Amino acid sequence: MSQCTAQQQRFWSPEVRQLEPYVPGEQPKIDNLLKLNTNENPYPPSPKVVAAVQQLLQHDAACLRLYPDPDASALKQAIATQQGVDSTHVFVGNGSDEVLAHIFKAFFRQPRPLLYPDISYSFYPVYSQFFAIESKMIALNEHFEIDVEDYQQANGGIIIANPNAPTSIALPLQQIERLLQAHPDSVVVIDEAYVDFGAESAVSLVTRYENLLVCQTTSKSRSLAGLRVGYAIAQPHLIQALEAVKNSFNSYPIDRFAIAAAVASFQDQDYFAARCQQVIEDREQLIAQLSALGFEVLPSKANFIFARHPAHDAADLAQQLREHGIIVRYFNKARIDQFLRITVGTPAQHQRLLDTLQQHILKS
Amino acid sequence: MSQCTAQQQRFWSPEVRQLEPYVPGEQPKIDNLLKLNTNENPYPPSPKVVAAVQQLLQHDAACLRLYPDPDASALKQAIATQQGVDSTHVFVGNGSDEVLAHIFKAFFRQPRPLLYPDISYSFYPVYSQFFAIESKMIALNEHFEIDVEDYQQANGGIIIANPNAPTSIALPLQQIERLLQAHPDSVVVIDEAYVDFGAESAVSLVTRYENLLVCQTTSKSRSLAGLRVGYAIAQPHLIQALEAVKNSFNSYPIDRFAIAAAVASFQDQDYFAARCQQVIEDREQLIAQLSALGFEVLPSKANFIFARHPAHDAADLAQQLREHGIIVRYFNKARIDQFLRITVGTPAQHQRLLDTLQQHILKS
Repeated sequence: MSQCTAQQQRFWSPEVRQLEPYVPGEQPKIDNLLKLNTNENPYPPSPKVVAAVQQLLQHDAACLRLYPDPDASALKQAIATQQGVDSTHVFVGNGSDEVLAHIFKAFFRQPRPLLYPDISYSFYPVYSQFFAIESKMIALNEHFEIDVEDYQQANGGIIIANPNAPTSIALPLQQIERLLQAHPDSVVVIDEAYVDFGAESAVSLVTRYENLLVCQTTSKSRSLAGLRVGYAIAQPHLIQALEAVKNSFNSYPIDRFAIAAAVASFQDQDYFAARCQQVIEDREQLIAQLSALGFEVLPSKANFIFARHPAHDAADLAQQLREHGIIVRYFNKARIDQFLRITVGTPAQHQRLLDTLQQHILKS
Repeated sequence: MSQCTAQQQRFWSPEVRQLEPYVPGEQPKIDNLLKLNTNENPYPPSPKVVAAVQQLLQHDAACLRLYPDPDASALKQAIATQQGVDSTHVFVGNGSDEVLAHIFKAFFRQPRPLLYPDISYSFYPVYSQFFAIESKMIALNEHFEIDVEDYQQANGGIIIANPNAPTSIALPLQQIERLLQAHPDSVVVIDEAYVDFGAESAVSLVTRYENLLVCQTTSKSRSLAGLRVGYAIAQPHLIQALEAVKNSFNSYPIDRFAIAAAVASFQDQDYFAARCQQVIEDREQLIAQLSALGFEVLPSKANFIFARHPAHDAADLAQQLREHGIIVRYFNKARIDQFLRITVGTPAQHQRLLDTLQQHILKS
């Protein structure tokens, strides 16, 4: 799409002319592509998800003419049951990105700055700009870890991804609890998009901390990135703020297919647990294999790894992998510009990655 | 959900404490309910919609693990083909409510006030408050019509629903063209949620007016309220502003089911045209029947009618209909508090409405 002229931009709201939108990992349509760039699950969703949508089509397709439940009560209940909380503690949205956007609007437009790590989900600075939220990035320590002591300063909110992205490193629950205790008047958001691959969830702390909000997604551990369902768990006084924002923006964000499919996913806990365990095992094997090739891999609790090779430039590696039909994520950003973020795939996909590295790239 | 305390509200962004969210028409779960309150289509969507989703489930269900196309290119192309525009002229979103929200942010945060009718879609003032947009309501004339001369004043944008809701009255295309010519530096948004039931669409003007943006939805005329797909049509320099806003908010708003289903709907133009024609005929008959019972019905080009009875209080009528399991929409608002908004249903549904009115309500 060609850029529009300054003359044409007069129609835009002035602040929108300055926006620097988020750039998602690319979704190219290339044959025989090995796509390890957007942290999608290599395994399909539960067969019960497919069955639930088939059921809707066979017995209730005419209901597509009707609006969905604006509160998605059935979905909130399914999430509440799986998470062991009351459904008044659940908010749902059109992917965790929409949930995060509502979180920024609902809690972080404050006189004091929002704090988040300098290296983290790159949508956080985009939301800050979009909602005109003053924010302050806190540097990860030299091991690329979050040190909660560094957050010991005046703030209007804190958001941390746990495990963090793209570093893959998890923060122990005890550290999160220290953060919650140190900032009793700030909302502390723990973005747990990747938590099901081995980190400790803060959902267990929700009933004890009135300032805690946990955000999760069905996109990664439930293999439903194509569905767009995310959610937040917190005490009702925080959920109510999200509902006020949501109902001032879009009354019906989750369609009938997405509700039916996500409910079925939350009801099939065995499938979910088995697939998460599989990804964890595959990840550990991939880390060992890449380490054997000389890569330095950060300790991952996510469905991706963050790795650098002391003898090879990361941008070059990404480019060469791409020429062999393998896409990984590269961030041209200070401190992490020698790292690659590689999604955990199947063992067969890993073998292709390792063979390509060994036979065509690392030997040069 | 109980209200939270002022003490708990300290966590909310200050402005969010003031929000007055939109209240959608209720979606009650009552047996034998006749639901004429949310302008849903009484007919199901095209069978090709169901077939397309079945196809996805049978041959491509594993793809649910992958993010959808963030640009929904296939859907934009299907809409462009049906509307006779280039796909660079199309923006898509999670229902036309999300599209409208992005429109308010993209264009209407201006030094001068946004103008819209005093009686119109009740989400407009909600968006204005949500995005802190100064707005000025322009009174409908004594016939509940929009008079474009009344908009002849300094403004930072104009939004008009055509046909207007809840009045159901359409504005002729010639009047819209006068508005476009009179305000060459303002974005003029025509919200055409109901246009397919007999009004003239402004899409035909898009290539000639760089300040025109038309918004439509699949929820009404395509019987897909359960799906959440809305769209905007305008020249690329306006579409680009919407994309910048969307990509600062949520990269993937439309899920794989919704894309597949909506594409199939736009490809089945015959079914669409036949159902719209049916609704128009049913509406005309309903208007005649209600008029025969003494109702005064505004001239409708929508899939709902707006009617008052000189001898019966509208709130009472709504309440009595409800006691007979029939829900219509009542707005307790100056100037229109003696009207009922009644969705066009099937002839059988109309008969039940008419019988109930005649036998149980109007006689009293």
